[in-house]
Amino acid sequence: MTIIIAVDAMGGDHGPPVTVPASLAFLEETPGASVVLVGRAEAIEPVLAKSRSPARNRVRIHPASEVVEMDDPPADALRRKKDSSMRVAINLVRDGEAHGCVSAGNTGALMGIARFVLKTLPGIDRPAIASQLPTKKGVVTMLDLGANVNCTPEQLVQFAAMGSALVSSVEQIERPTVGLLNIGEEDIKGNELVKETAERLKASGLNFHGNVEGDDIYKGTTDVVVCDGFVGNVALKTSEGLAQMLYEFLKAEFTRSILSRIVAGIAYPVLMRFKRRIDPRRLNGASLVGLKGVVVKSHGGTDALGFRHAIRKAHAEIESGVLDRIAQRIAAMPAAALGEAPARNDA
Amino acid sequence: MTIIIAVDAMGGDHGPPVTVPASLAFLEETPGASVVLVGRAEAIEPVLAKSRSPARNRVRIHPASEVVEMDDPPADALRRKKDSSMRVAINLVRDGEAHGCVSAGNTGALMGIARFVLKTLPGIDRPAIASQLPTKKGVVTMLDLGANVNCTPEQLVQFAAMGSALVSSVEQIERPTVGLLNIGEEDIKGNELVKETAERLKASGLNFHGNVEGDDIYKGTTDVVVCDGFVGNVALKTSEGLAQMLYEFLKAEFTRSILSRIVAGIAYPVLMRFKRRIDPRRLNGASLVGLKGVVVKSHGGTDALGFRHAIRKAHAEIESGVLDRIAQRIAAMPAAALGEAPARNDA
Repeated sequence: MTIIIAVDAMGGDHGPPVTVPASLAFLEETPGASVVLVGRAEAIEPVLAKSRSPARNRVRIHPASEVVEMDDPPADALRRKKDSSMRVAINLVRDGEAHGCVSAGNTGALMGIARFVLKTLPGIDRPAIASQLPTKKGVVTMLDLGANVNCTPEQLVQFAAMGSALVSSVEQIERPTVGLLNIGEEDIKGNELVKETAERLKASGLNFHGNVEGDDIYKGTTDVVVCDGFVGNVALKTSEGLAQMLYEFLKAEFTRSILSRIVAGIAYPVLMRFKRRIDPRRLNGASLVGLKGVVVKSHGGTDALGFRHAIRKAHAEIESGVLDRIAQRIAAMPAAALGEAPARNDA
Repeated sequence: MTIIIAVDAMGGDHGPPVTVPASLAFLEETPGASVVLVGRAEAIEPVLAKSRSPARNRVRIHPASEVVEMDDPPADALRRKKDSSMRVAINLVRDGEAHGCVSAGNTGALMGIARFVLKTLPGIDRPAIASQLPTKKGVVTMLDLGANVNCTPEQLVQFAAMGSALVSSVEQIERPTVGLLNIGEEDIKGNELVKETAERLKASGLNFHGNVEGDDIYKGTTDVVVCDGFVGNVALKTSEGLAQMLYEFLKAEFTRSILSRIVAGIAYPVLMRFKRRIDPRRLNGASLVGLKGVVVKSHGGTDALGFRHAIRKAHAEIESGVLDRIAQRIAAMPAAALGEAPARNDA
């Protein structure tokens, strides 16, 4: 089968100058795929015209007259911009004209529109945002990263099942380990939400490792880390802030004096290897999981290399059948994990 | 006045070999202070005997026969080890024999015992753990870092007042800016806890900056960042994990080959300056704020330099009168910040 990916060509900070070359580069490395570029033809065509890519014949433009801006309130984007490139790309997925879509646009709008247009899979209350982070051992998949600020234990169990299915499909790990993000003080084993979720995860049939702490994320203790969207978003943004500060401090030391600059020149290949190793573009692309369709959100400010990674991620999810896998995991879940609160012995 | 600090000499991973030299080094740089080393004389005396410090005459040993272990459940440490070095050090504060105390022991036990023995200041429901983190601009004081997993808006406002008072006292910033840790998705402005806390902070008379996101911590957007202990602990531990991973990756690149090692030798002074800049020992020492006494928790695994910083922190809090400042801030707080939920216009 030819996998067709709808790309919101207008989304993100750069639009077609990033999304179009990224799509072509992706197609060159992926013979069995095609891309539908959704957006304003007058913005997309000039960029396409400049390319001599042999993959140009596997691209078509699908018109959409509006663009969701980064600061559009999601509710407005949903109600008022019915012909936005984002909305039309998602419509193509719903209508079976594309197998999945990728957008670098406004996260809240993308989640709102995707949820409204595609609906959630059976047994899923709310979709979540899942992303890979680098670890000492490889990568970890963490969710939710900000879609759901108030979660129930049942929802966290659904996130665990979705994260597990995602890793199973895309990374071919049969039974990924799942950690529940908690805190490490000895006298307090987390809040009520985490405590009840842990009980349910034990009964879920998933490969539940138990509680993990913040530092376990980057240690790579488990394949999946589950948390509510408030905590996950704070952890992610805090990490971004820390990495940026450390990078600036390192740069400041290597540019402090003429001598430091000479040293930096000598150390350049080593520093570049380090930088490549933690290059966020390599892991660009957050999956909106739990929807009846593959939707990947790219970082808004990324370049063509980063955006290509996001398209690759959508392609991998489609190819490995992640939606079926999620549906199976949820269907196989015992009542003790997702149903009524388990009976307590103290009755 | 001579400031007297009780040091739990037995606490932490190393005990007297770290706590005793740290105390002496602290006293050498702080002429108007003295230290009470609390613990087993037979463990402390040999270390003291080895020192030729001119500050030895400002140290005395106060005996305590037991030690709280790192894995002791806090409730057991509180109930059963009534003659522990930790407990006795806190008793000295309660009895006015010391102005504050420092321990590198079990955090949960320290918090439990300190709260039981010292009680909280008027108007404070629960103490919090506050610590300084490095930022691009200097330092930020963040709380709570794990003492309270389920917080009310009133408690978060108390944390804000305590953090503000701490920074006012120790850093001589008259009206520190206070940020409320929240998430950045456009459609969701945080959970109910954060929303109500923000309303109360606006009415608090504190210099409330508004919501901040995880990356604002390290940007140094505000002087104080307030959050519940679950979120704060996750942010802190996640940061530790990320910093350690990045450090290992950097080290790996600089030791990958003989050539990289030569480059590392050349870059050594620059790399060391970078390392010093982010040296966690410089900011070692978390303040247990809200108690009727100054209590500082040192990292358990730190060395004499790190432990000395924790003693310095206790000394600075005592010298600048942080307890009075907290009491004043709380007393000055209007009812709309700490009292009944504000009346709503929709009634």
